[in-house]
Amino acid sequence: MTATNRRIVLDHRPEGTPVAGNFRRDDQPVPELSDGQILLRNHYLSIDPAQRGWISPGVNFADPVPVGDVMRSLAVGSVAVTRNAKYAIGEFLYGWFGWQDYCAAGEAQVIARVQPAQGPVSLGLGLYGISGVTAYLALTELGRPRAGETVLVSTAAGAVGSIVGQLARRLGCRVAGLTGSDDKVRQCLAEFGYHAALNYHNGLDAPALQALCPHGVDIFFDNTSGAIADAVWPFMNLRGRIVQCGTAAVASWDPAPLAPRRERIMLTRRLRHEGFIIFDHLERFPAVVTQLARWQQEGALVFHEDIETGLDHAPGALAAIFRGENRGKKMVRITNGTRAL
Amino acid sequence: MTATNRRIVLDHRPEGTPVAGNFRRDDQPVPELSDGQILLRNHYLSIDPAQRGWISPGVNFADPVPVGDVMRSLAVGSVAVTRNAKYAIGEFLYGWFGWQDYCAAGEAQVIARVQPAQGPVSLGLGLYGISGVTAYLALTELGRPRAGETVLVSTAAGAVGSIVGQLARRLGCRVAGLTGSDDKVRQCLAEFGYHAALNYHNGLDAPALQALCPHGVDIFFDNTSGAIADAVWPFMNLRGRIVQCGTAAVASWDPAPLAPRRERIMLTRRLRHEGFIIFDHLERFPAVVTQLARWQQEGALVFHEDIETGLDHAPGALAAIFRGENRGKKMVRITNGTRAL
Repeated sequence: MTATNRRIVLDHRPEGTPVAGNFRRDDQPVPELSDGQILLRNHYLSIDPAQRGWISPGVNFADPVPVGDVMRSLAVGSVAVTRNAKYAIGEFLYGWFGWQDYCAAGEAQVIARVQPAQGPVSLGLGLYGISGVTAYLALTELGRPRAGETVLVSTAAGAVGSIVGQLARRLGCRVAGLTGSDDKVRQCLAEFGYHAALNYHNGLDAPALQALCPHGVDIFFDNTSGAIADAVWPFMNLRGRIVQCGTAAVASWDPAPLAPRRERIMLTRRLRHEGFIIFDHLERFPAVVTQLARWQQEGALVFHEDIETGLDHAPGALAAIFRGENRGKKMVRITNGTRAL
Repeated sequence: MTATNRRIVLDHRPEGTPVAGNFRRDDQPVPELSDGQILLRNHYLSIDPAQRGWISPGVNFADPVPVGDVMRSLAVGSVAVTRNAKYAIGEFLYGWFGWQDYCAAGEAQVIARVQPAQGPVSLGLGLYGISGVTAYLALTELGRPRAGETVLVSTAAGAVGSIVGQLARRLGCRVAGLTGSDDKVRQCLAEFGYHAALNYHNGLDAPALQALCPHGVDIFFDNTSGAIADAVWPFMNLRGRIVQCGTAAVASWDPAPLAPRRERIMLTRRLRHEGFIIFDHLERFPAVVTQLARWQQEGALVFHEDIETGLDHAPGALAAIFRGENRGKKMVRITNGTRAL
């Protein structure tokens, strides 16, 4: 093949939060396939907070992306060439296809099939991707909400948080959100089902949290860690659950920053704190996506996509989400014009 | 009645770890009973690390003992007078009877009946009391050990830890212990079923912990918090469980001291951290005690009692356990000479 595969590779590791300059273009020929592989044409690239961890050294759940390699990323692509009978040309897939036009992928890189009948295929990256399935599983299985309980969500208007808010409300909980702008507060209240929401830039002192959660917090769905978490923990109720789904507010963990010691509150309030990573639960995808699609098609779930266009915008889009600038699930579209888009 | 009830009351709250001088004698007449009450003659008073929390201000699971009141304590006593048909004269009971000779108690103060057929009634305070039932329930229900996993216990030779070690070994785990003297290390290895044990005063650096737990830690049964916990956490394996059963190494929580922030390791290793307090599980006592008594009578459980004699030794005995001086379940005997003793 002589066609070009535009690629964005890791140039050097970030100090703390990534910036666009940590990456560079490194175009190569479109790859040849081995037996069992498929060639994906990427349409949407996912921009995820977890990507910071994948390019940092230190404690993480996956080996770091090697310098010079294509940036690791989830993506929705369509099958352009197939040497695997399980996948047909034109089919849309969600998986580990990287920040590039084309990916030669094996089965292990495919997470789910994307059904155009369930909505725009971009939803495969968000509501029907790790955002939606994380929200559903982490809330229901780690949080175990009961009607009447208070659920507090950090990054309440984000891709995961906005779904958690709606699901928790559906389950009869009182739902409160912490988010980073007055505009997002309004969005939480008007669109995502929150009963109350607070812009944490306006202060997170005890009276503010007391007003936000007058009956304390039974489930803290924490995507941030940091000062936000430290402010929330003292409000945990007896037998409360803290679901650790992200640590977006802390830029560096090597060494781990200091925080108020929590063993005593864990003990005296009989709290349960658990970490959740969606990649342990990939076998649950089809059933959860079917459920989410039913609610979405009934009009019962609002999900925002924040889509930029053009491969070269991916590095800047990643940097932007750590500034809280995205409005919903951030992604980059790199092709136009197929029917399902 | 004209008989005297010797009592030890809280004189003033401790700064950090309690000392004998925080308490004083305040004798009173033996109390009269109301309908439904029983008069207990105390035989053994329990000395527990948790008592520090009960006399401290700040975050805890029970209201603090008021200054001037009899010191809150578990005890084994026998029924001397009864105005409640559920309890017969001479019966041994375990409950909230305080540091005193006599207690006028209602049903709510009784935790369990003590069966002399299951062994010396002093076991009702330890192996068959909160120590044994805590060890059994916290290990099996929060820790959920599987054969082949590594269980690490802090205060490995203590009243709870020594039982956890033996139960975990019985369940097929590899069991490692942290304790505060070379002598206790020997005891862990020779008597309590530990495969390995370490005196933390000899250093808790990474090579020492690596040697203690070469396959990492699947269950950390933590009775200490503090520097011991900070050293252990980095050795937690994927999907490890941390059972928070005490915080003996930290004298003051107001304000909470600082510790390395743990949200990232919680997340990336999918850990589960839970607090356990036995008083949530009192309905489980009879079944668990029956099981423990079966093992004890088979000779399969070693349990040490560290018994001082004389009511006035109770305050000093409490101070001593925070210096790590006890060898097994600490208690104070205040009577002699009944058949079952």
